[in-house]
Amino acid sequence: MRTGLLAELVAEFIGTMIILLFGAGVVAMVVLFGTGTPNEVVNGGYTNITLAWGLAVTMGVYVSGKISGGHLNPAVTLALAVFRGFSWAKVIPYSIAQSLGAMAGAAIVFFNYRLAFLQFDPNLEKTAGIFTTFPAFPQALSAGFFDQVLGTALLLFLIFAVTDERNQPISGNLTPIVVGLIVVAIGMSFGKLHGYAINPARDIGPRLFTVMAGFRNNGLTDNTGVWWIPIVAPMAGGLVGAGCYDLLIRRWLPRD
Amino acid sequence: MRTGLLAELVAEFIGTMIILLFGAGVVAMVVLFGTGTPNEVVNGGYTNITLAWGLAVTMGVYVSGKISGGHLNPAVTLALAVFRGFSWAKVIPYSIAQSLGAMAGAAIVFFNYRLAFLQFDPNLEKTAGIFTTFPAFPQALSAGFFDQVLGTALLLFLIFAVTDERNQPISGNLTPIVVGLIVVAIGMSFGKLHGYAINPARDIGPRLFTVMAGFRNNGLTDNTGVWWIPIVAPMAGGLVGAGCYDLLIRRWLPRD
Amino acid sequence: MRTGLLAELVAEFIGTMIILLFGAGVVAMVVLFGTGTPNEVVNGGYTNITLAWGLAVTMGVYVSGKISGGHLNPAVTLALAVFRGFSWAKVIPYSIAQSLGAMAGAAIVFFNYRLAFLQFDPNLEKTAGIFTTFPAFPQALSAGFFDQVLGTALLLFLIFAVTDERNQPISGNLTPIVVGLIVVAIGMSFGKLHGYAINPARDIGPRLFTVMAGFRNNGLTDNTGVWWIPIVAPMAGGLVGAGCYDLLIRRWLPRD
Amino acid sequence: MRTGLLAELVAEFIGTMIILLFGAGVVAMVVLFGTGTPNEVVNGGYTNITLAWGLAVTMGVYVSGKISGGHLNPAVTLALAVFRGFSWAKVIPYSIAQSLGAMAGAAIVFFNYRLAFLQFDPNLEKTAGIFTTFPAFPQALSAGFFDQVLGTALLLFLIFAVTDERNQPISGNLTPIVVGLIVVAIGMSFGKLHGYAINPARDIGPRLFTVMAGFRNNGLTDNTGVWWIPIVAPMAGGLVGAGCYDLLIRRWLPRD
Repeated sequence: MRTGLLAELVAEFIGTMIILLFGAGVVAMVVLFGTGTPNEVVNGGYTNITLAWGLAVTMGVYVSGKISGGHLNPAVTLALAVFRGFSWAKVIPYSIAQSLGAMAGAAIVFFNYRLAFLQFDPNLEKTAGIFTTFPAFPQALSAGFFDQVLGTALLLFLIFAVTDERNQPISGNLTPIVVGLIVVAIGMSFGKLHGYAINPARDIGPRLFTVMAGFRNNGLTDNTGVWWIPIVAPMAGGLVGAGCYDLLIRRWLPRD
Repeated sequence: MRTGLLAELVAEFIGTMIILLFGAGVVAMVVLFGTGTPNEVVNGGYTNITLAWGLAVTMGVYVSGKISGGHLNPAVTLALAVFRGFSWAKVIPYSIAQSLGAMAGAAIVFFNYRLAFLQFDPNLEKTAGIFTTFPAFPQALSAGFFDQVLGTALLLFLIFAVTDERNQPISGNLTPIVVGLIVVAIGMSFGKLHGYAINPARDIGPRLFTVMAGFRNNGLTDNTGVWWIPIVAPMAGGLVGAGCYDLLIRRWLPRD
Repeated sequence: MRTGLLAELVAEFIGTMIILLFGAGVVAMVVLFGTGTPNEVVNGGYTNITLAWGLAVTMGVYVSGKISGGHLNPAVTLALAVFRGFSWAKVIPYSIAQSLGAMAGAAIVFFNYRLAFLQFDPNLEKTAGIFTTFPAFPQALSAGFFDQVLGTALLLFLIFAVTDERNQPISGNLTPIVVGLIVVAIGMSFGKLHGYAINPARDIGPRLFTVMAGFRNNGLTDNTGVWWIPIVAPMAGGLVGAGCYDLLIRRWLPRD
Repeated sequence: MRTGLLAELVAEFIGTMIILLFGAGVVAMVVLFGTGTPNEVVNGGYTNITLAWGLAVTMGVYVSGKISGGHLNPAVTLALAVFRGFSWAKVIPYSIAQSLGAMAGAAIVFFNYRLAFLQFDPNLEKTAGIFTTFPAFPQALSAGFFDQVLGTALLLFLIFAVTDERNQPISGNLTPIVVGLIVVAIGMSFGKLHGYAINPARDIGPRLFTVMAGFRNNGLTDNTGVWWIPIVAPMAGGLVGAGCYDLLIRRWLPRD
């Protein structure tokens, strides 16, 4: 089924927007609505953050998968171009659509929670991390760089594994759930060294939004110079992971 | 399969009652049974609340889906009437059955936990939120209104996506589980600005019960005037989400 | 497939033993290994308790379902006899096998964690609740009684729904997972008023073990007289729930 | 499908490496990144640890299952040799590949989180438990020994159950998810007495790495003498569990 590039770009935009709606949404919930809310309920903490990011990707793929393949991530798009014959001409358009979708999702989350932001961070100087990622050790950017290479390598390695028709492909249109579980696992195990962008669009789109919205600690205009890590590292890591899968696993699997 | 309107109304009543049994039940558990219980176990907090609300919807749909379609939500019923040819004559009856079922579920939960209510809130002045929803920012009702439009738009957009036979429909009667996961995601990411009713019946039925049971902070007779938000906003949001799905995604999918 | 009563009783014994191994095991973990353990990790609290009890039932049903039907609960066995033609002659044998299996599981958990019990509760006077259930409001046993009727009614209502070949039966041998999710939902929403036995065998077998092992607060020999509630209430509740399903839902479903 | 021993060893190496990447990764996250991180978010605690270890196994089996059977555990390999005719000549090679894979995974996690280790445990004297397992009661090693026999017996009993084509085998290539859920259940219920290795390769490989990396509390060169327990006990426990399954359950199931 091919319905044309426009349909695919719309699907990628919407799918990535859904990822950010839930993804930035859950971090906003955990950070802005602490245990001091009226209900006095322990907020879900990092457990909810990791589960909801997984669900975010699951839902994005359910929406867009049939039309565009449900990449929702330039690292996925690039790896599919290099290793699975995905059209090179579409790599840039897909990546732009994904980044714009992520930006739109972040903007909607900010608008939705604007009063909570005003209350918790009136000068917008400490909460850009709700939308985009930052290193836990700013003095050593290489740590976060390696972490993002590793996390995205795992993402692509595992996506290539569970969608490989020669391996053990999942039936019944349940693959989006397993892809979401991959993201849950990466978040739980590799989520705090650089915030697990593992997706350049998911990071740069919302980061540009934070700049436009006036967040000071945005990683782009604050002289920290961290913005390029969640772009370059995931692109490289995705290629590493996808290449390793083909080299180490797929080579042994029969073509039929 | 059509077994007549009575069967459908019974199924909608029972299914929505099940949602409230588990949904109001888990909030009662978390709010009323704090960490000071005999077991001295950390209660599940917002993680349990969001997971159990998802399971609540999953179970309600398993029970009612075959007979009535398992709407369990006037926003779903209305969207199906507008966009999928569901009978307009049934919209009001379905909505009433759903609201009465939700009210019945809330009443049973209150009766079950009556001693815990007496202990925690003897004058019934602070726990109506176990049954019905309230704004986190009462001074700006528009924030909660937009939040409920957004949350219900996501609900309908995603329900339309995962049940669309032209897209990637789930096989093996596992759709109710994915619908539950949608509700989990909305709860984790858009659950605290207005309590994520995303369902007018789930909100007004239990709210009427809180009025009858004597809860003071019920949003209806306490002059806060918040009761209409979780009714109007979800109805509007559901139409927005369902319409966006058809306009942005379904239009590109082949008819078969 | 029928392989004889002995096979079925062995399967019921093993399946219920597995439920208690995981079920009593997770409560022992949360209660006995607090946050002061060497790892200084926040223990899983009630979230882990409810998830693991669901997994316990899932695993028990996977093991025993093909041979015995995987009842693992006298309330299920009785309801199947009353409403589905299960052999009345097997109700007592099944119930005894289930109770003995639960007792064996509890005994193994106690033996496994004996050092932790010695450290946390050397006189065995406060931890019988790891194995068997107690009311949160001992002064009003009717509250726990109703809670257990309600919880078990939900259990049977939903088991009857998801296994009804006329409704939406789950394919691919995934039903045990959904049955586990039902138990998760009941635990999260109706788990603290009387500990959610919702299963007489799961309660009386381990309770008899606590008496034999010398636990003082066992509910049987401590003059509290609470032991019969998690037996009688689940049996009644199971019949209520199963009967309601047939009366309110199944009656509308076509025979084929 | 047989592609030769080399392919199988590569698959076992990679699969077990993936288990340790996620498994050691999540413990590193919870232990090293406490609640004092920039986001001030409650870390996922033992809930995340148990969920991520289950996902780790799920992902490892998805990657390797088609090629090597996805044992990823010498206790599984040995049990399959004894009870299912798996080639005895491959038991040692498989076990070595698994151990080396686990060692590689641990090394990568340490390299990734090296700055966090330097900050939290600069002398490497208290965090070997992130990679390998230790007894909660060092004064009584038999407690941990029995716990590991029990945990691994449950693992093999349940793996044999859910993969037995005569019982209720799961369709649609979803078995790896259920195997992961088995590991989640064991972790939640039997995870803190000796750290739930339930897998000699998962324990000795990373332990050797901790020795090489200079961790002092490694259980091998620190005169505690605990290193052999998570090797011998799981091997014995796996045989007990697999044998019990065949003796108690499989014997009753028809051959076709």
